[in-house]
Amino acid sequence: MSDEPFRIGLLGRGTVGTAFAHLVEERADAIAAEVGRRPQLSGVLTRSRGDFDDILASSDLIVELMGGLEPTRDYVLRAMDAGRHVVTANKQLLSQHGEEVFEAARRAGVQLRFEGAVAGVVPAIRVMAESLAAAHIERVHGIVNGTTNFILSEMARTGASYEEALADAQRLGYAEADPTEDVTGKDAAAKMAILARLAFNVAVRLDQVSYEGIDRLTAEDIAYAKELGLSLKLIGSAERIDGGIAVHVYPAFLYADHPLASVNGSFNAVTIESPAITEITLSGPGAGGIQTASAVLGDVVSAMIPPPSLPPPAVDLPVLTDTEFSFYLHLEVDDRPGVLAQVAELLGLQGVSIKSVVQKGLGQEARLVMVMHPVLESRFRAAVALISRLDFVREPPRVIRVIEETFE
Amino acid sequence: MSDEPFRIGLLGRGTVGTAFAHLVEERADAIAAEVGRRPQLSGVLTRSRGDFDDILASSDLIVELMGGLEPTRDYVLRAMDAGRHVVTANKQLLSQHGEEVFEAARRAGVQLRFEGAVAGVVPAIRVMAESLAAAHIERVHGIVNGTTNFILSEMARTGASYEEALADAQRLGYAEADPTEDVTGKDAAAKMAILARLAFNVAVRLDQVSYEGIDRLTAEDIAYAKELGLSLKLIGSAERIDGGIAVHVYPAFLYADHPLASVNGSFNAVTIESPAITEITLSGPGAGGIQTASAVLGDVVSAMIPPPSLPPPAVDLPVLTDTEFSFYLHLEVDDRPGVLAQVAELLGLQGVSIKSVVQKGLGQEARLVMVMHPVLESRFRAAVALISRLDFVREPPRVIRVIEETFE
Repeated sequence: MSDEPFRIGLLGRGTVGTAFAHLVEERADAIAAEVGRRPQLSGVLTRSRGDFDDILASSDLIVELMGGLEPTRDYVLRAMDAGRHVVTANKQLLSQHGEEVFEAARRAGVQLRFEGAVAGVVPAIRVMAESLAAAHIERVHGIVNGTTNFILSEMARTGASYEEALADAQRLGYAEADPTEDVTGKDAAAKMAILARLAFNVAVRLDQVSYEGIDRLTAEDIAYAKELGLSLKLIGSAERIDGGIAVHVYPAFLYADHPLASVNGSFNAVTIESPAITEITLSGPGAGGIQTASAVLGDVVSAMIPPPSLPPPAVDLPVLTDTEFSFYLHLEVDDRPGVLAQVAELLGLQGVSIKSVVQKGLGQEARLVMVMHPVLESRFRAAVALISRLDFVREPPRVIRVIEETFE
Repeated sequence: MSDEPFRIGLLGRGTVGTAFAHLVEERADAIAAEVGRRPQLSGVLTRSRGDFDDILASSDLIVELMGGLEPTRDYVLRAMDAGRHVVTANKQLLSQHGEEVFEAARRAGVQLRFEGAVAGVVPAIRVMAESLAAAHIERVHGIVNGTTNFILSEMARTGASYEEALADAQRLGYAEADPTEDVTGKDAAAKMAILARLAFNVAVRLDQVSYEGIDRLTAEDIAYAKELGLSLKLIGSAERIDGGIAVHVYPAFLYADHPLASVNGSFNAVTIESPAITEITLSGPGAGGIQTASAVLGDVVSAMIPPPSLPPPAVDLPVLTDTEFSFYLHLEVDDRPGVLAQVAELLGLQGVSIKSVVQKGLGQEARLVMVMHPVLESRFRAAVALISRLDFVREPPRVIRVIEETFE
């Protein structure tokens, strides 16, 4: 382990910048253990404070989270010319000055990483650049704007109009006060230009991406989609066609079996199609300070040392076998009074709490189907063993685990 | 560009090995253009042909696709001791002798890559090792066995019994003649041991993974799941609990909003949860020779040169704007005879072919909703412009694109 910290100069301290500063501090020890150097913020440039040249001089790497084109472009170019690696989440910069910035990085022999610029924490950039380096990518479909996906999901879920859903999104912090860039599809267009560059090695100018937004969609459009079993999403597409490529952003109906059809709320997702791989879909939170900061930190770690092919030596942690689960219990019983009470009592004695129960009479017989709150497996199995011995239980109990969505 | 080819010694020529050999040949030029050296098979070891030492001597890297533990383990260790990088898709080897093999790679200073060992082309290994190198992973949930996911999907789709669905899977090549490893959950257990090693840096022995399979599930269990709005899947879970970790494989009911609930057929998927990232889900084909071969080739390219942070210089390809789409067209019209015929005629004149149409009367008015077969956007827009001028069209036509699932 080197005693020298790895010095990060941070440009910008908005939502993502602040989250990034916290995350570096929180994860510094773990990163030091993994890569042998401790990351540390050496300076922060905000609109009102800090001097770029001072920060540059005291940094090994620059993280650019200011956004916008100027002075950002100038800072990024100067940092690379000075031999610093750069990590950025700036989709405008990359979609409008990508070739200039890539060329500067190549010339200076430094790394330029930008996972956070597209689809938040969804690792679309790395997977295309590395896992699929040998693949011939035919098409990329993406839901790359969380604001519009949230609005469309709300319209589908509640039947709200576009205006109502937008107001909700603004109230909940999923849309900005001026949502123009998002709802017109322009934000998604910038991200698709970047994905197309990676997928096809073609320099795509932002003005070559035709885009339509969601601002003219109606509750009726969504109602029709539902009636036809379709989802309505704002889709970015980049594909090879007849010796060229095409990049578009548009609202589209998706059939239910499309991998993007079930991506809801503010989540983003990218589906990459290639003959050899069929398709890969990557999904996760598309926005949010902490999530984007996490993608940026992943890039910083990759810039600190080349990603190793091996996991680090194993640490010692016990591997537990008896843990908590939610369980479903299915009992075939005689239909007589007191059955449910006795079953419930045995469960209760083991500390098993019933979340929901359905009882169905079938003539002389009945069927009890229950879902439990999470409980230690050994306690649940003990209760089931006792229940299986009750004289009114006609068949061995059936037990299956239940997993609920943790987040969202 | 170096004139020296990058020589790959291939161990094993089963389904994946054969697909890999073809893929190397097919992609050799593109890889040479990207990384500066041309990959080339320098030798193939099969059960009846080839000599390991000869192949080793003439290779820069060994791709191990023989499977099994011996003599595979011996070959892999000898290759690394001789300074060769190794790429393998061998889940048995890694889940049972992982630490020995990792230690040998570390000692020899060579790369050991194994994306193909878990979840086929789904880049779970790389994303955990690189994108999430700085993240504190709390839990991994996976559908990591394509055979069982296919069987459960078929049971849910058709109401078939387990035995019937298994027979279908065998007939279609999704299950082997002896499906024991798959249906008992043992195959998934090996993969979850590897994912747990990556997620938590804990050495998990295969016998520390408790597993249950799908062989005792009934059509009735699935019917219940449907009734309750749940999916029944074979889930692998690896999680941190109370200062330890736990790794299990079991059938589980998933609520509809769980990211794994909509993963159907032989697809695999992995959901990785961490406080900072919320969750990332990666999905794609779980098995198949060509898909696994594609993951293996991605690893080979990464071993040839460290993955660059930058895309290669852009090539010149035209960016097209007028391309083919499927369209949905929604018309509010007067309800009188001949309306559909006139609309259909104008579409037909532009070469637009109607895939489906729904007409609804609303008193004096009617609504026509149509979905078209794919057509060049300019032709469709021309037809719509003409249609919008028909005197019975009461409101501007509404146009939305439709995307169908290409694969499956």
